[in-house]
Amino acid sequence: MAAGRGRMTHGAPPRVVLLTDFGTADGYVAAMKGVLAEMVPDVHLDDAGHDLPQGAVDRAAWSLDRYWRRYPKGVVHLVVVDPGVGTGRRALAVEADGRFVVAPDNGVVSRVLDRAESWRAVRIDEEGLGAGVARSATFHGRDVFAPTAALLARGEPLDALGPPLDDPIHEPEPEPVESEGTIRGEVVNVDRFGNLTTNVPGRRVREGRDVSIAGRSVRVRTTYGDVEEGVLLALVNSSDRLEVAVRNGSAARLLGVEEGAAVELSSEA
Amino acid sequence: MAAGRGRMTHGAPPRVVLLTDFGTADGYVAAMKGVLAEMVPDVHLDDAGHDLPQGAVDRAAWSLDRYWRRYPKGVVHLVVVDPGVGTGRRALAVEADGRFVVAPDNGVVSRVLDRAESWRAVRIDEEGLGAGVARSATFHGRDVFAPTAALLARGEPLDALGPPLDDPIHEPEPEPVESEGTIRGEVVNVDRFGNLTTNVPGRRVREGRDVSIAGRSVRVRTTYGDVEEGVLLALVNSSDRLEVAVRNGSAARLLGVEEGAAVELSSEA
Amino acid sequence: MAAGRGRMTHGAPPRVVLLTDFGTADGYVAAMKGVLAEMVPDVHLDDAGHDLPQGAVDRAAWSLDRYWRRYPKGVVHLVVVDPGVGTGRRALAVEADGRFVVAPDNGVVSRVLDRAESWRAVRIDEEGLGAGVARSATFHGRDVFAPTAALLARGEPLDALGPPLDDPIHEPEPEPVESEGTIRGEVVNVDRFGNLTTNVPGRRVREGRDVSIAGRSVRVRTTYGDVEEGVLLALVNSSDRLEVAVRNGSAARLLGVEEGAAVELSSEA
Repeated sequence: MAAGRGRMTHGAPPRVVLLTDFGTADGYVAAMKGVLAEMVPDVHLDDAGHDLPQGAVDRAAWSLDRYWRRYPKGVVHLVVVDPGVGTGRRALAVEADGRFVVAPDNGVVSRVLDRAESWRAVRIDEEGLGAGVARSATFHGRDVFAPTAALLARGEPLDALGPPLDDPIHEPEPEPVESEGTIRGEVVNVDRFGNLTTNVPGRRVREGRDVSIAGRSVRVRTTYGDVEEGVLLALVNSSDRLEVAVRNGSAARLLGVEEGAAVELSSEA
Repeated sequence: MAAGRGRMTHGAPPRVVLLTDFGTADGYVAAMKGVLAEMVPDVHLDDAGHDLPQGAVDRAAWSLDRYWRRYPKGVVHLVVVDPGVGTGRRALAVEADGRFVVAPDNGVVSRVLDRAESWRAVRIDEEGLGAGVARSATFHGRDVFAPTAALLARGEPLDALGPPLDDPIHEPEPEPVESEGTIRGEVVNVDRFGNLTTNVPGRRVREGRDVSIAGRSVRVRTTYGDVEEGVLLALVNSSDRLEVAVRNGSAARLLGVEEGAAVELSSEA
Repeated sequence: MAAGRGRMTHGAPPRVVLLTDFGTADGYVAAMKGVLAEMVPDVHLDDAGHDLPQGAVDRAAWSLDRYWRRYPKGVVHLVVVDPGVGTGRRALAVEADGRFVVAPDNGVVSRVLDRAESWRAVRIDEEGLGAGVARSATFHGRDVFAPTAALLARGEPLDALGPPLDDPIHEPEPEPVESEGTIRGEVVNVDRFGNLTTNVPGRRVREGRDVSIAGRSVRVRTTYGDVEEGVLLALVNSSDRLEVAVRNGSAARLLGVEEGAAVELSSEA
């Protein structure tokens, strides 16, 4: 292979980060890792996680949002949450701000496309993955996505993987709506702790104001320590968005809300 | 140490893949990793998984089946599902088609022995693991299996680990039975998704035929996308076996079956 | 950077071991890994575990106890179980017997401080972590602890991270009490298997004696295989302590006990 981008430009060893909904009891994730290690013997394999709820494309997109750009350029993010395996859904590889993402084309890269300063994508040419790769009908994580990630990890250029894809499925984050001095947003992600991430950007949030959610009024604070344990608060979270949380507790459970729940706050100075 | 096989022949950095039923909350897996990193400083440590049900030797064997040969030659697979720790059960190391497996001798390598073109095994000489290794009575994962895996990972020859073992416990996969134009097999593994893997090889399966299971007749298709969501189908899976599944659902739950359930299909042309 | 300790002294590639209560579905752990890989491109990232119960500082301390010294010198243990994030709690870095631990100052290093032959600690200077690091109010795992671990992994000396800290929170393991020929101890940790680790050191335990716990008398044996399946026994475990267990079962469930339960055994020869 000619000198490739991943390895040569960045000088770092190849690294692939895996996110799936496979669980780890059945050996499916390890089968993908084996393919990667076979094709790229010195690859570092980092687990993002494998216990996403099955087929949870949207939650996977938010999970990926939290880490894809924290990794250095040249990393390959391999995301296999693929309820459409065995249908006509496309397989894609994206380069976004110097990081790669290999995934089914089902919207799981939506947050990456939202945030990247620049990106380009190709549709993976599954037939062209090369001699010796027998593609199963049911496990494209092993037979399509892992080999593609391996090629990128060892420096193959994106263009070599397939034709350009200009319209990957992209469900943009909903914009909050502002009118009459009020910003109306919604809960876009609920994490393991029951923290509620909203689509209201941090720059619109002012300490001391109140947020309305589920019929409650919640005061904006700086951090969890500003309230007692078990008490609701709002704050700007580590993704720079308005979050509603309970200190050492679950806001989702306390308020009985989930993704899509409405939030409102005043936009007046 | 003299030039060893693992590192010298294959040119790849040493890599150990871990499969246990320890969970990860108690530090037992990390204790094994620490031993490995102490003995082989540049080792890559890949998790296959640690959330197998406790003592689930058979499920571990099927999990291992899915990945052991996907890894390149020289890899060391460390499998510690060991309900017999502290009994007389033997500890073994196997070389199979150039990959190594270190495990208790309780049948967990049965699928490896089924599939390997060639293999040889040794009984680990636990007394000979060397100065400085104090062996506990209860945690051979750390005190026997991890040090053995480390020795193999850094190139020690298999023969140096103990005397040959010709009769590791091997519970061969049951053969399907054929008579009067019918193949009778059984469910041999149920994965996290509720997919039912059977012992009927893929080459015996023809699209459009019907499979009988749990009083139901299920049509053989090519892939999940050939039916609607929630519908039963049969297909040849990624392990090249007949599988009964539900698209984006659980066949195990829908049919109320588990390992050992009978399946039948026509063998006529 | 000048020649640093971690890399230069030990000759091993940098390695960071992660223990958190974050779960892995939300991308928080991967965000920490990304920061580490960005700052130390060739770092090996080993998972200890991420499924500790939320805020379980004491259990994390026992988990860490099982592995921190198994790893070679120069390793960095990154422990983020941090119910006090966003309060005034301090962030610390410890060097103990040549290994590093980076963690919130909430007692999670107590077992390390109990066992280390020598240690020294610094309070992490969060303001001094350097240009480009914007510190969130809620995710110090990513914004404080991971960057600190990265600095140590690439050889930065401990002293460069902040001022000495002489009084990290340290809840020493309770000492068993001996009187009138009886040692009175307690259960200090319950693991996933329901095994009960006590604070009675192994050297005080003699085979054939009886241990009293929860109104039962349990005979001291050498190992699990000395009793039938499902039967209670006591033994010296892999941490060199008195343990009460059930062979292939859960002593915690069978006895209905948890941390703090009293145990007694005879100390007479």
